[in-house]
Amino acid sequence: MSEENPIKPYVHHAKYYETDQMGIVHHSNYICWMEEARMDAMSQFGISYRSMEESGIISPVVSVSCQYKGMVHFDDAVQIQVKVVKYNGVRLDLEYEMTDSITGELRTTGASTHCFLGDDGHVISLKRDCPEVHERFRLMLGK
Amino acid sequence: MSEENPIKPYVHHAKYYETDQMGIVHHSNYICWMEEARMDAMSQFGISYRSMEESGIISPVVSVSCQYKGMVHFDDAVQIQVKVVKYNGVRLDLEYEMTDSITGELRTTGASTHCFLGDDGHVISLKRDCPEVHERFRLMLGK
Amino acid sequence: MSEENPIKPYVHHAKYYETDQMGIVHHSNYICWMEEARMDAMSQFGISYRSMEESGIISPVVSVSCQYKGMVHFDDAVQIQVKVVKYNGVRLDLEYEMTDSITGELRTTGASTHCFLGDDGHVISLKRDCPEVHERFRLMLGK
Amino acid sequence: MSEENPIKPYVHHAKYYETDQMGIVHHSNYICWMEEARMDAMSQFGISYRSMEESGIISPVVSVSCQYKGMVHFDDAVQIQVKVVKYNGVRLDLEYEMTDSITGELRTTGASTHCFLGDDGHVISLKRDCPEVHERFRLMLGK
Repeated sequence: MSEENPIKPYVHHAKYYETDQMGIVHHSNYICWMEEARMDAMSQFGISYRSMEESGIISPVVSVSCQYKGMVHFDDAVQIQVKVVKYNGVRLDLEYEMTDSITGELRTTGASTHCFLGDDGHVISLKRDCPEVHERFRLMLGK
Repeated sequence: MSEENPIKPYVHHAKYYETDQMGIVHHSNYICWMEEARMDAMSQFGISYRSMEESGIISPVVSVSCQYKGMVHFDDAVQIQVKVVKYNGVRLDLEYEMTDSITGELRTTGASTHCFLGDDGHVISLKRDCPEVHERFRLMLGK
Repeated sequence: MSEENPIKPYVHHAKYYETDQMGIVHHSNYICWMEEARMDAMSQFGISYRSMEESGIISPVVSVSCQYKGMVHFDDAVQIQVKVVKYNGVRLDLEYEMTDSITGELRTTGASTHCFLGDDGHVISLKRDCPEVHERFRLMLGK
Repeated sequence: MSEENPIKPYVHHAKYYETDQMGIVHHSNYICWMEEARMDAMSQFGISYRSMEESGIISPVVSVSCQYKGMVHFDDAVQIQVKVVKYNGVRLDLEYEMTDSITGELRTTGASTHCFLGDDGHVISLKRDCPEVHERFRLMLGK
């Protein structure tokens, strides 16, 4: 990913309970890891998802995808690089690249898209309704 | 368990994603299966946990325990017999016996205790505050 | 999906432990439901994934995607229609459509692709190495 | 727990996907957190559970219990103190105390017991069969 990406990578250590009987991490866990890395990335820019929800804004996942390139085993450390590929105040598009923390080998790529809903369940624009949070998301885009 | 137990057993088919790299179901899943079987038992007596929550009553788990007697593998069908061992309107004590649906061999025993909280987060007595639901829980005790 | 799809739909009842604090099923669970429905579809055609693994063949997930169209709540029954969109003995492409069992409303669409690996971890062709299982997968394609 | 406990506490940050619709961490996750803390404790004493399994020894959970004293919310940091209460080479008994990392308030107490199985699935004595690992487990007991 671009050197200009202002988001620092997140590291997840694969847990025993995340493995399956193939002897590798079950593929569903990567979806959760993407969530972990996404929230960590937001917090790097001062966006607390907890506070967002407490103020009445939720950000559901609209779509998610994952391509499995290599296996992750129990006790492996996986570095997850999040990249904001699109953000316009109404919709957030992210990409993820997961590599082995030690060897740097690619393990998984992924993507997710998100919208923002207000208290009444309707789509909102952060640009209009939360300009301060909007500005922080914009900074995540980098140059 | 007693022949007088009025609760019919619940069957869970072990899923692939519930296995771990030992090649068996990970031990944490049984806690979830106890929840499935508990809610099924309640529904047998006309108690919808969904409706209970919608009416402002939640029933948190106060304690849980599990003894692993035999391994469960992917694709096994497990019969779970729930037994209400104590119920007084304020506290609910349950026991669980999990056996292989085909061989009848014992796999796991468990127990859980629950209380009831109202909208304000305080402990309530179903006997006093929800006599109709209280009566249904009493029926789960059997003779 | 096409009326010619020879696969019968699978039903999953949403569990309490699958919900998150948004009050809906957490988006990662759909990936597991797709696995449940996929293995059920295989078993409808006499393919036991358990037996496949015991005979030394595993079928890892190569990619997965999911589009969330509507929310699923605890206790909802979700009908999952699996469709084999491509199968050539080496690669299996599936699509999933999840609808509310009662209202028929669309909840989620998804897709997954799979390959087949032998004991030594190398890609195999079922057509060449397991013609009997290959024929069963072909039948899942329908007309 | 005793000041003589030689095990340093482990910290888990509660994830969004660990919450349920009560708005708190689902009770089944604590069983997984106990596993995380247990493996971290072992690694503090140079015991790699991964290496143990690779050398043909597994350590299944024989029983587990958990008492829920307070709720944990998304984004809370939970400090988990593991204590070895009994170890004789054949059986390992652990206790867990989970407190809020910031306030120090008690959240959960737990316990687990474990045995050790060799390649053939039979119970083994680490004292006899793996004296080096045995010595490390003994050190976890403290004075």
